[in-house]
Amino acid sequence: MKLMVYLAGEIHSDWREEIKNQAKELELPLLFKGPMENHERSDHIGEEILGSQPNAIFKDEAASSINNLRTQIWLNKADVVIALFGEQYKQWNTAMDASAAISLGKPLILIRPESLHHALKELSNKAQIVVETPKQALQALSYVFEEN
Amino acid sequence: MKLMVYLAGEIHSDWREEIKNQAKELELPLLFKGPMENHERSDHIGEEILGSQPNAIFKDEAASSINNLRTQIWLNKADVVIALFGEQYKQWNTAMDASAAISLGKPLILIRPESLHHALKELSNKAQIVVETPKQALQALSYVFEEN
Amino acid sequence: MKLMVYLAGEIHSDWREEIKNQAKELELPLLFKGPMENHERSDHIGEEILGSQPNAIFKDEAASSINNLRTQIWLNKADVVIALFGEQYKQWNTAMDASAAISLGKPLILIRPESLHHALKELSNKAQIVVETPKQALQALSYVFEEN
Amino acid sequence: MKLMVYLAGEIHSDWREEIKNQAKELELPLLFKGPMENHERSDHIGEEILGSQPNAIFKDEAASSINNLRTQIWLNKADVVIALFGEQYKQWNTAMDASAAISLGKPLILIRPESLHHALKELSNKAQIVVETPKQALQALSYVFEEN
Amino acid sequence: MKLMVYLAGEIHSDWREEIKNQAKELELPLLFKGPMENHERSDHIGEEILGSQPNAIFKDEAASSINNLRTQIWLNKADVVIALFGEQYKQWNTAMDASAAISLGKPLILIRPESLHHALKELSNKAQIVVETPKQALQALSYVFEEN
Amino acid sequence: MKLMVYLAGEIHSDWREEIKNQAKELELPLLFKGPMENHERSDHIGEEILGSQPNAIFKDEAASSINNLRTQIWLNKADVVIALFGEQYKQWNTAMDASAAISLGKPLILIRPESLHHALKELSNKAQIVVETPKQALQALSYVFEEN
Amino acid sequence: MKLMVYLAGEIHSDWREEIKNQAKELELPLLFKGPMENHERSDHIGEEILGSQPNAIFKDEAASSINNLRTQIWLNKADVVIALFGEQYKQWNTAMDASAAISLGKPLILIRPESLHHALKELSNKAQIVVETPKQALQALSYVFEEN
Amino acid sequence: MKLMVYLAGEIHSDWREEIKNQAKELELPLLFKGPMENHERSDHIGEEILGSQPNAIFKDEAASSINNLRTQIWLNKADVVIALFGEQYKQWNTAMDASAAISLGKPLILIRPESLHHALKELSNKAQIVVETPKQALQALSYVFEEN
Repeated sequence: MKLMVYLAGEIHSDWREEIKNQAKELELPLLFKGPMENHERSDHIGEEILGSQPNAIFKDEAASSINNLRTQIWLNKADVVIALFGEQYKQWNTAMDASAAISLGKPLILIRPESLHHALKELSNKAQIVVETPKQALQALSYVFEEN
Repeated sequence: MKLMVYLAGEIHSDWREEIKNQAKELELPLLFKGPMENHERSDHIGEEILGSQPNAIFKDEAASSINNLRTQIWLNKADVVIALFGEQYKQWNTAMDASAAISLGKPLILIRPESLHHALKELSNKAQIVVETPKQALQALSYVFEEN
Repeated sequence: MKLMVYLAGEIHSDWREEIKNQAKELELPLLFKGPMENHERSDHIGEEILGSQPNAIFKDEAASSINNLRTQIWLNKADVVIALFGEQYKQWNTAMDASAAISLGKPLILIRPESLHHALKELSNKAQIVVETPKQALQALSYVFEEN
Repeated sequence: MKLMVYLAGEIHSDWREEIKNQAKELELPLLFKGPMENHERSDHIGEEILGSQPNAIFKDEAASSINNLRTQIWLNKADVVIALFGEQYKQWNTAMDASAAISLGKPLILIRPESLHHALKELSNKAQIVVETPKQALQALSYVFEEN
Repeated sequence: MKLMVYLAGEIHSDWREEIKNQAKELELPLLFKGPMENHERSDHIGEEILGSQPNAIFKDEAASSINNLRTQIWLNKADVVIALFGEQYKQWNTAMDASAAISLGKPLILIRPESLHHALKELSNKAQIVVETPKQALQALSYVFEEN
Repeated sequence: MKLMVYLAGEIHSDWREEIKNQAKELELPLLFKGPMENHERSDHIGEEILGSQPNAIFKDEAASSINNLRTQIWLNKADVVIALFGEQYKQWNTAMDASAAISLGKPLILIRPESLHHALKELSNKAQIVVETPKQALQALSYVFEEN
Repeated sequence: MKLMVYLAGEIHSDWREEIKNQAKELELPLLFKGPMENHERSDHIGEEILGSQPNAIFKDEAASSINNLRTQIWLNKADVVIALFGEQYKQWNTAMDASAAISLGKPLILIRPESLHHALKELSNKAQIVVETPKQALQALSYVFEEN
Repeated sequence: MKLMVYLAGEIHSDWREEIKNQAKELELPLLFKGPMENHERSDHIGEEILGSQPNAIFKDEAASSINNLRTQIWLNKADVVIALFGEQYKQWNTAMDASAAISLGKPLILIRPESLHHALKELSNKAQIVVETPKQALQALSYVFEEN
């Protein structure tokens, strides 16, 4: 029985590759989906599909409508959600996706550096587990599959 | 991972074929379902199965009960719904299906000519994205699958 | 025990007044809510609150976001929804609200002139009852309260 | 019919007072709830009730469990949620509450300075309306109550 | 805190009066709702509101659409449902309402003569309690309110 | 895409075979599940697994707990439910299953002889379609699959 | 705005009185409900209403059906659930009610002596907060109401 | 059509093996999942992944967060849940999982020695069936698959 994992969170490091590689090494039956990681493309997809927009706000609205389409489709199909927060950026869409997962009854694994513990304390409290590295998240998923 | 797409909307043009062909060209793992497109058959299916009805209203009620059966079954299984509005016809069943999709937590892609923007403004506001052509709808779905 | 009734539908005739007056005459414990009926105001409310928009489509989007806010709040609190369709206009927001009510498990009373029976056949099939006049809708609600 | 409004968001300015005062002036039947606004108290409530914790992370976990208790109780009872983002701070709990509101089917009014439009674009797209000032949020709620 | 009780079931005996009188004697804070008990009226309400129908089946469909409107409204508001089955009649609407209550998460008290135990065994198994008399149903509700 | 059909209803005729055979002839991708049709076995399964019971009522309770286990498992997985009522028997479990299907958002096809129209009028009104023969039910399902 | 609190848990000490008294002292707008605390009565209520049962197991089944009726009614109406575990007894019904509360989206306050931390670790992890005394539970609820 | 069975309950006997072996013998299309049965590992998994914790309570909290992750993932995917209670241990997590299954609309098969009937009476009343041995649980599942 395969599990579908949605990888929410920042797109400026290669943490998703790290997780996918370790899953492959451990031969875990996991299927991964996530947001567009090409930042340029993610910002421009609205105008690419919907055409030129009047200003930066409307350009953002166009792009986010398509990014949210992608997120909603995969989040609906996910069995578990991993959300990673990094030191930089506001990452409010990550918090939004993480909270949506919880509301949908899907367990959330939160990855964050210890330095963010205070700012993330309410979301940490709602997450099923909180870890500091992608490797720990995968250890937890590996444990889920462990045969007795 | 395949996605199931329900194609709600008018049945007087070949927009569904356009979408299916482009999905094939792009090799997207999409499965399409939709309403009966043979208009005659859709109007007569009630009497065909349930027998002659007392008048036109009851004939319509009989037909719609079976058309709605079809819609409910496929809408329940859909991952995403595309609804297309054309210039003609009332298309209230399209609006009904589109709204049902939203209420079921399924993302809605709305296709409509720019000329209809005012009449469709409330539904547009509820849709996840609004486009003008089937091609744009498929571009959005293609983006959903894009590997990073 | 009071019931809350949401009155969806066209805002170009005084059908809501007709219903409210009859409810008062019959002393039915009904509380009514509905959309903004001042058409001008409904179209301009977006720009009034959010400021000038780049073009007619964005003006519509701004207005509908606020009109939908109003609808969502009252629809969530409604015990029953009455939706009236008139001969004119597209009225897709009415179809959208009616369908949302059904999806939320709230009974729908549909009022439409007989002439619209074909165009409304799928929505009629989903409605709990279909009538032709506001008076009939209120007769049905009166029956709901009738003591044995 | 009174509406219950949950005021999510930052607790370093007096925006909630601004909203409450305007609601009083306009005589709107609104009841407001929100998080603990005394920042010190919010941070220490965990240790106050549960006793001294081993370190800062556990102190945060204790505090957030009680802050989330408060939020969950009032959010469950809210008819509409207003979330305000300011220029400073991570405000991930605000994003979490806003997203939870949407998932619960409650309309979200998002208040944010224009400068945050890019960082908040995905959440803005999910909100029912996006405004820049508390006054605009209240204008929208006033419109919800406007008699025709 | 008052509880709302929906009294589903046959309308040929005065069991509802029995329950209401005992509730009054015991001063239990119960509010009762139920179907139209005037059998004639219940059968004719469709034609009374919707006009003459083509035949007996359509007359029944018209009547049941309005009877179900009444049931759906009150069932949605009920805190507990009592369903009584008598020796006579098919009473399939009673079984339908009882099952709908269970699906909605509302506890069901089933009243039936011992003679019906076999025919009602699957529904009995789903009911929260099964009794033989209205008096027993009220004893159970009285126990619900008993102060310790 | 295969559909799972739950066949609720009486177990004294071979109507399920009729449906399964026609589905095979028409090569429809349908998978059928239903209750235990061996009446003896259905009545005794409680005592067979749970041991001898004190009296007929407890024997019935034991049997129905296991029959309902079977029904709940397959009903949860069904895409559409067909419920057939015959002239004889109370068939309250059929009404219960039919109503549960509706509450779960699964479309119901009701099969009943015309003679039962009055007794089944409320359930007919809730069903998505009402037919008189198993063949008609399958015609409707065939229509659901019909390619345009 | 009053909150309804369901007090699940053991009935051999006066912890509920302690909570109610403190709520009164603090003038908190709380309404309390809970199980029958008279142990004798709780064990015999089945036979009292349903008559003598064949053996101890059936007597228990009869009693629990009525105790669960009481619990389901009040749990459905509760805004928050407090569950207290004591040193003695299995208290599986307490665990059942606590888990049901969580599944229904209602926040759970768990009270348990420190000595039970290991046996209750999974339930503690699901609870919104875990405390050791009724007084702490009430402190938390007091914080919920604290005006800023 | 395969069914997924979650095996909740004590991990000190080999009852899961017993069930799996019998399912194999009977060639039932069942897939089994359950908690970590290695007791040591289950208690230490928190510190293994999250590192050393300040004391026994925090160690338990860390472990249970990961055990609950495992349970939530598999429970969400289960078609039916079997929960076994033994004579020893508190087993509150078993009661919690059993209750969660019921709340999620998944049928519960409860296995318990007769000696526990009183302590488990409320949970027994909520379970779909109650048996004394794993073999009986499998007999019931075998009956679910029995072809007519």
